Amino acid sequence: MIGKTAAIDGNTAVVHVAYRVNEVCAIYPITPSSPMAELADEWSALGVKNIWGNVPVVQEMQSEGGAAGAVHGALQSGALTTTFTSSQGLMLMLPNMYKIAGELTPTVFHVAARSLATQALSIFGDHSDVMATRAAGFALLCSGSVQEAHDHALISQAATLASRVPFLHFFDGFRTSHEISTVALLGEDQIGAMIDDDLVRAHRARALDPAHPFVRGTAHNPDTFFQARERVNPFYAAVPAIVQSAMDRFAALTGRQYHLFDYDGSPDAERIVVAMGTGAETARETAAWLRKSGEKLGVVQVRLFRPFSTDAFLTVLPKTCRDIAVIEQTKEPGAPGEPLYLDILVSLANAVAAGTWPSMPRITGGRYGLSSKDFTPAMAKAVFDQLARPELKNGFTIGIEDDVSHTSLAYDPSFSIESPETVRAVFYGLGSDGTIGANKNSVKIIAEDARLHAQGYFVYDSHKSGAQTISHLRFGPCPIRAPYLIQQANFVACHQFAFIGRADVLRIAAPGAIFLLNSPYDAEVVWDRLPRSMQRQIIEKRLRFFVIDASKAAREVGLRGRTNTILQTCFFALSGILSRDDAIRQVKESIRKTYADKGEEVIQRNFGAVDGTLERLHEVKVPNEATNSWDRAPLVPADAPEFVKAVTAQMLEGRGDQIPVSLMPVDGTFPSGTAAYEKRNVAELVPLWEPNICVQCGHCSFVCPHAVIRAKYYHGAELDRAPPSFRSAPINVRGFPDVRFSLQFYAEDCTGCGLCVEVCPAHSLTDPERKAINLVAKLPLIEAERQTSNFSRACRSMTGRGSISRQCAECSSSNRCSSSRAPAPAVAKRRI
Amino acid sequence: MIGKTAAIDGNTAVVHVAYRVNEVCAIYPITPSSPMAELADEWSALGVKNIWGNVPVVQEMQSEGGAAGAVHGALQSGALTTTFTSSQGLMLMLPNMYKIAGELTPTVFHVAARSLATQALSIFGDHSDVMATRAAGFALLCSGSVQEAHDHALISQAATLASRVPFLHFFDGFRTSHEISTVALLGEDQIGAMIDDDLVRAHRARALDPAHPFVRGTAHNPDTFFQARERVNPFYAAVPAIVQSAMDRFAALTGRQYHLFDYDGSPDAERIVVAMGTGAETARETAAWLRKSGEKLGVVQVRLFRPFSTDAFLTVLPKTCRDIAVIEQTKEPGAPGEPLYLDILVSLANAVAAGTWPSMPRITGGRYGLSSKDFTPAMAKAVFDQLARPELKNGFTIGIEDDVSHTSLAYDPSFSIESPETVRAVFYGLGSDGTIGANKNSVKIIAEDARLHAQGYFVYDSHKSGAQTISHLRFGPCPIRAPYLIQQANFVACHQFAFIGRADVLRIAAPGAIFLLNSPYDAEVVWDRLPRSMQRQIIEKRLRFFVIDASKAAREVGLRGRTNTILQTCFFALSGILSRDDAIRQVKESIRKTYADKGEEVIQRNFGAVDGTLERLHEVKVPNEATNSWDRAPLVPADAPEFVKAVTAQMLEGRGDQIPVSLMPVDGTFPSGTAAYEKRNVAELVPLWEPNICVQCGHCSFVCPHAVIRAKYYHGAELDRAPPSFRSAPINVRGFPDVRFSLQFYAEDCTGCGLCVEVCPAHSLTDPERKAINLVAKLPLIEAERQTSNFSRACRSMTGRGSISRQCAECSSSNRCSSSRAPAPAVAKRRI
Repeated sequence: MIGKTAAIDGNTAVVHVAYRVNEVCAIYPITPSSPMAELADEWSALGVKNIWGNVPVVQEMQSEGGAAGAVHGALQSGALTTTFTSSQGLMLMLPNMYKIAGELTPTVFHVAARSLATQALSIFGDHSDVMATRAAGFALLCSGSVQEAHDHALISQAATLASRVPFLHFFDGFRTSHEISTVALLGEDQIGAMIDDDLVRAHRARALDPAHPFVRGTAHNPDTFFQARERVNPFYAAVPAIVQSAMDRFAALTGRQYHLFDYDGSPDAERIVVAMGTGAETARETAAWLRKSGEKLGVVQVRLFRPFSTDAFLTVLPKTCRDIAVIEQTKEPGAPGEPLYLDILVSLANAVAAGTWPSMPRITGGRYGLSSKDFTPAMAKAVFDQLARPELKNGFTIGIEDDVSHTSLAYDPSFSIESPETVRAVFYGLGSDGTIGANKNSVKIIAEDARLHAQGYFVYDSHKSGAQTISHLRFGPCPIRAPYLIQQANFVACHQFAFIGRADVLRIAAPGAIFLLNSPYDAEVVWDRLPRSMQRQIIEKRLRFFVIDASKAAREVGLRGRTNTILQTCFFALSGILSRDDAIRQVKESIRKTYADKGEEVIQRNFGAVDGTLERLHEVKVPNEATNSWDRAPLVPADAPEFVKAVTAQMLEGRGDQIPVSLMPVDGTFPSGTAAYEKRNVAELVPLWEPNICVQCGHCSFVCPHAVIRAKYYHGAELDRAPPSFRSAPINVRGFPDVRFSLQFYAEDCTGCGLCVEVCPAHSLTDPERKAINLVAKLPLIEAERQTSNFSRACRSMTGRGSISRQCAECSSSNRCSSSRAPAPAVAKRRI
Repeated sequence: MIGKTAAIDGNTAVVHVAYRVNEVCAIYPITPSSPMAELADEWSALGVKNIWGNVPVVQEMQSEGGAAGAVHGALQSGALTTTFTSSQGLMLMLPNMYKIAGELTPTVFHVAARSLATQALSIFGDHSDVMATRAAGFALLCSGSVQEAHDHALISQAATLASRVPFLHFFDGFRTSHEISTVALLGEDQIGAMIDDDLVRAHRARALDPAHPFVRGTAHNPDTFFQARERVNPFYAAVPAIVQSAMDRFAALTGRQYHLFDYDGSPDAERIVVAMGTGAETARETAAWLRKSGEKLGVVQVRLFRPFSTDAFLTVLPKTCRDIAVIEQTKEPGAPGEPLYLDILVSLANAVAAGTWPSMPRITGGRYGLSSKDFTPAMAKAVFDQLARPELKNGFTIGIEDDVSHTSLAYDPSFSIESPETVRAVFYGLGSDGTIGANKNSVKIIAEDARLHAQGYFVYDSHKSGAQTISHLRFGPCPIRAPYLIQQANFVACHQFAFIGRADVLRIAAPGAIFLLNSPYDAEVVWDRLPRSMQRQIIEKRLRFFVIDASKAAREVGLRGRTNTILQTCFFALSGILSRDDAIRQVKESIRKTYADKGEEVIQRNFGAVDGTLERLHEVKVPNEATNSWDRAPLVPADAPEFVKAVTAQMLEGRGDQIPVSLMPVDGTFPSGTAAYEKRNVAELVPLWEPNICVQCGHCSFVCPHAVIRAKYYHGAELDRAPPSFRSAPINVRGFPDVRFSLQFYAEDCTGCGLCVEVCPAHSLTDPERKAINLVAKLPLIEAERQTSNFSRACRSMTGRGSISRQCAECSSSNRCSSSRAPAPAVAKRRI
C-alpha cells in the first residue's frame, strides 16, 4: 500500500492506523468521534486483521466510563488497547486516565475534539474537552489536518510504547474528523516498521499475570504517596525526545517530517502566531500569503502540547520575535489566560530570566473557533494585524462580534488567500437528499483517479434529516491546506429550488462562477422565478447559469427524490475537472459500488438517469438586467417577537455567525415557542384532502410524524367567515347535523413523507384506488398564490408564527390555528 | 449562638453552614468529605431546620455522577442546593459542573480536597481533584483552617447568589476536614444576615416553571455557540469584587476579615511565598517566626483562586519582592508548572509588560504535601532559604528526598517554631481501641470549658480497625495555627505496650516531656521491659515516666479492652491542663453523654474506672543509665527480600516519610507477598488448644476472620522431628491409626477476637464448660520465650516471613508453615 493515496476523512485516517496497531478497542461512540469506533467495529466483524495478523476485539460498553475501565483492564492484561471519544465522553474517562497515566501504561486515546456542553450542548469542535484532561498525565499530541491525524495516530503509538506515558491524540472535531481529504496512506509495512515488537513484549511483560504475580493498584498513605508520585518524572522528561525520535523515524519512512513545534515563516519574523490544530494551518497559510508583501511573520504550530517542551519551543521560535499571539480553541472562564498562552508566556519569561532569551516579547492570548466557528484567513490576518498595534488586546476573541466585553478583533471578511488553481465548489442540499453522499463520491473520484488533491467538508446542522446541508469541495493540483469553509466559490449548486426564496445562496459565488440550479422551471422561464437580488447577483458577478429539472428526471427513471447522481453528473459536466466521458464512466462505477446491494435494477435506473442528464441540462441566457420587482421576503413576519427577529431569523437565514454577543442569552435560556417560526418548507409534494370520500377516521392525523395534519370539528355557522374555497364535510356521527369536520394541513411543516396517504382507508365508490388524501406538487400552488397576491406575502405566510394553518395545499386561503388542545373553531382570523 | 465557640472538625464546621443555607443536599459520601454528607443526612432525619425554617431534603444518589445531576436538576427547579465530595467523586461531577456554570447557576460544592488516584489510590489530601476542575467555570475558594472553612462556607454562598457563578469551596482533606479545632461558631442570625433573600427570590425566578415557560439546555450550532459562550464574561469579571464585598460584610458581622489574597509579612519583604490552604498557614507562621531575626519575608495566602484577580494579587504583593516561591499541593506531569505558579508568573509578567510593576521578580514553583504529606515549618523555612540562593530550583519538591530527579529541597527537621505556651500531646493507640474517641472528647472538654484553644488531629492509616493510630493534640491560650503534625511533644502516651517493641514512640518526645505507658508491668519492673534505646531516650530527654495497667483496670470493672476513659483520666491528671477534680468531673460528664444510649450500667462501670484510675497510676523511678543490653529488633528478618527491608519495613516502623523516591516503584507495582511481613501482633489474648478434648470439627479454623487457625493432619512419624512440646492428637476418623491431627495458630495475625472460642463445641467430661480452645494472655509467653532464648529473636519471630507457625501460644517452639493448600508436614524446618 506504500505510496497509495485515498480521499478519506480524519476519523477514517486515524482508525485506519489505530485499528492496525491494537488488539482491543473498547468503545462508546460519540459525535464526532463515532466513525472511528464504528469502523473499528465493522472491520472487526469483517475479520480485518491488525499488523500482527490478529483480528482486534472491539467491545462497546455501557458508557465512556465503562469504555475507559475496559481499556484500563485490557491494558493491565497486556493487550494493546485503544478507544475513541469526544467531549463529555472524555470527561467520563478522566478517573481511569489518571490511573492509566499513574501506572505508566502505554495506550493512545484518539479524540475528535469537541466542545463541552456549557450554556448549551454542542456537537461541534473545539479543544475544551482535551484541555480539561491536561492534568491527568497523558501526553497530548495535536493534529491539524487529515494527513497529520493519520500520521500522528502512528507516531503517538510508537511514542507511547517507547515512553510508557499514555497519549491522547486529538484533532479538530468535524473540521478534521469529517473533512475528506487526499491522504498518502500508510502501508502495513510502514506501520509495522514504526512499532517495535520488543516494546510490545515489554508491555506484555508488565501485565498482571498469575505466572509472575505482583501487586498493582494499591492504596498509599501519606508516608509514601508523594515519593511514588514523583517517581514518574524521568518518564515525562523523556517524552519530547521520544516523540521527536519517532517523528524522525517516520520521516525517514514516509518523507513527511514533523516536529514537536513546527515553525513556518520569515527567519527574522517579528510577529508570531502560536496555535494548535487546524487553526495553525490557516494561520500558517495566511502568514505565507502576507509574507509575499514583505511582512515579517511566522507561525509556530504546536504538535506536542504535553509534556510541554520549553526547549523545543524556544528552538524554533525566531529570536527576532517582538510580538506573539497565542490563539486557542477553548475558553476557561476565570483563568488569567487559556492553557497554551500560559505555557508560552511562562516559557519565555523563564528563558528571559535565565538569560537564554534576549528580551521578553509582547505576548497576547485569544480565542477562536469555539464549537467549530469557522477560522478563516481573514481572521488570521486580523490576529497578525493586531500584533502590529501599539496596544495589544489580551484575552481577545476573533470571529465574533463581542459588543459586551469588547474582546473581539475586527476583521475584513472579504480577505481571501485561496489559490486561483483551486476549484472551489459549494452545494446546497437537504439532509438525506443524497447531495452529501454524491459529493463524497465526487471527492473520491477526483482524488483517487485524477491525481488531483481534493477536499470535502460538509456543513450539517443539528436538525439532521431534512435540514439544509452545504457541501464545500476543493480540488486542485497542490495539496489543499484550507481547513475553513469556502468563502468564494467557482461553482455553486443549489439542489433544492425552494432555497432560493429563503437564503442568499449566491452570496458565496465568486465572479464568473458557474451556478447550477435544480429547477422545476426550464431554462426559458426560470429567470422570472428568481428573486430580484439573485438576478442582480447573477448579472453583476457574470455567473454562468444552468438549470436542470433533476427531480422530474429522477421520477421519470423511477428514482423519486433521488436526484444525487443526476446532479453529480451535471457537476462533472460543468466543472471541467475531468473530461465528460471520464466523469460519466467514474460516476457509473461509483453507482455500481454504492448500490451493489440494492440490485441491478436500481443500478440500471441510475445509469439511465446519468445517461439522460446532459440533454436535460441547459444554460440560461442571462439578461442584462434584473427583471423582477419582488425579492426574498423576511423569513419571519414583522410582528414576530423581537428575539425571533433579531436572533432566530438570523439563524434561519444562515446569518447566525453575524449575531453579536449581546443578543445571546447570558445563561443559555431562550424564549419558548420560537420553533413556530422555524418552518422548513422542504416538501415538494404536500397532502390534498378530498372531503367527499373521507371517512373521518383520523388515522392521517395520528400517524403524521410532524404534526402537520389536524382534524377539527366545529359548528357549521363558523363557515360563514371562511373563504369560499375552505373545505369541510358534515361530521360523520349521528345526531350533530350542524357540525362540520375539516382536515387541516400545515404545508410548511410537511416533509412529503406520504405516510398520511399510506394509512388513508377511504376510497370512492367509483374508483377503489382513490384515497381521501393524495400528494400533489406544492410549488405550482405557491406560484398560483404568488400570482393572486404577491410572492413575498406567500413566502412569509409559509413561515409565520402560529403558524399558517393551510387547510389544504390546493387552497390559497390560510387560517391561524394556534391550539390543538380543544376543537377550536377552524376558521379564526384571516392572516393577511 | 453568637459568640459561641466549639471544638469541631472542618467537615462539621462547613456543613453547619451549608446545611442551613440550602434546601436540597444531593449526596454520595466519599472520604474525607463523608461526614459533611452524613451529618446533613442525620440532621435532616432529625428535623433540623435551615435558616428559613425548613428541613432540607437530603438524598443519597447512586454515585457522584447522580449527585451532580440531582444538584443540577434541583437548582433548575429553583431550590438552593449543595453537595459534598472529594477526589474521584468530583471527577464524576465534572460534566454537570460545566453545565451548571454555563447556565450561571448559583450553588456551592464543598470539597474536602483529596488526591486523585494515580500510581495508587489514596484517601489523603491534596489539591489534585480541585485543580482538575479549574476549567469548568466554577469559582474556586480555598480555606486554610477549620475556622476559615466555617466562614468561607457562608461567604461562598453569599457570593454565588450575588454573582450567579457557582462556587467550589475547598479545604484540605483530613488536615482541615478532620482536624478538630476551636471555632467561633456562626449564629443563625449571622448566617441569615449574609444571605440576601432578594437574591434567593431571583434564583427562584430563574427556575424552569410551566407557569412562565422558557427553554434552557438547548443545542447550539457553530453559528452561535461562541457568542453565547462569551456572554458570561461580565459575570466572571464581577466575581472578585462580589467575593470581597461578601468578605467585608462578613467582617462587619463577625470581626473576622478575609481578602481574596491576604498578605502577611514585612511591608518591604524581599522573599515571598504564595500558597493556598493549610500550607499557607504554615508558611505564614514560619515567616512570622523567621522575621523575628530580621529577615524580610512575607506570605501571600490565596483564597479566591478562580476567577483569578491579578489586580487583587498585585495590590497585596509588596513591590519590594525580589524572589517568589509558589508552592502547591498538586502535580501536573508534563506541565511547565503547577496551576497557581502559572497564574502568578503570568500576572507579574503582564504587569511588568504594562509598566504597572517595577521589574520581574525571580519566580519559582514547587510541590509540597501531596496526599497529606506533612508540611512543617522546617519545610517552609527551606522554601524561604532557597529563595536567598543565587540559583533557584524550579519545579522543586519539599518534604521528600527525591534522589531520582533531584527536585527536592533539603530541610532541617529539627527546626521548630512551636510556642512554649502550647501543650503538645501525642497518643499512640490502636484503631478502634477508643484512643481517638477519648482524645476527641478531651479536645472538646478543654476547648469548650477551659476557654483554651484546642486542636486535635488523628493519623489513621488505611488499615483501619486494628492499625496504629496517632493522636496529635495541642492546647494553649492562643489560637492554634499549626496545621501539621506535632514534631516535639510535651506529653507522649503509648496506649499499647506492644508498640514499644515495634516503633520508636519516644522519637517525638520533647526534652522534659511526660511519658505515659499502658503497661502490664508495674512501676517497679517495667524499666527492665523497655528496649535499651528507649531507656536511653527517657534518660537523655529527662522524661517523667508513668505507667498504669489500664487493660487490667478495665477488665476489673467489666470493660474488657475499653481502656480509653482510664487513659484519658491519666492524661488530664498528668498534663495539668485542668485541675484534677475539674478534669474528672468533665470526663464523667462526657462519659454520661457518650454512653447515654448504652445504659446506666456501662456509665457506672466507666465512672468506676475513672475513680480507680489515679491510684493505679504510678511514676517510674528512672535510673541514671540504660540497664538493658537488648533493643528493638528489626521488624523483618535479615533474609527478607530487599524490597521488604528497604521499603515495607520502613513503612511498618513509621519511617515511610524517609523513603527516598528511588526506592518507590515507577508505576505503583509492588512485589506480592509483602503482607507476610506485616504482622500486627495486636492481640493481648491468643488461642490455646487442648488436643485431648478437641472433636476436630474444624469450626474454629473456618470462622477465624484472620486465617490464624489452620487444621492439619499428617503421618505420625513426622512428629519424630517435632519439638517435644508440639501438640497433636490421633485423628478422629476410623481406619487411619497412624495419622495425627494438629491445630496451628499464627499468634502474630491473631486479633484476639475470640470467635474460635465461641464456636468451639468441645468440652471435657468432667467440666462441661471447658472448651478445647481458650484465650490466654500472649505477653507472658513472649516473656517466657525471651528468657529461654533472647528477646530480639522472639520479637523477630513474631513478624517473620512465612510466618512463624506458632503451634499454640503456650509452646515456645515455632515452626514454619508456608502453605496451607495441602496437608503439609506440620513440622518442617525449625526457624531459629
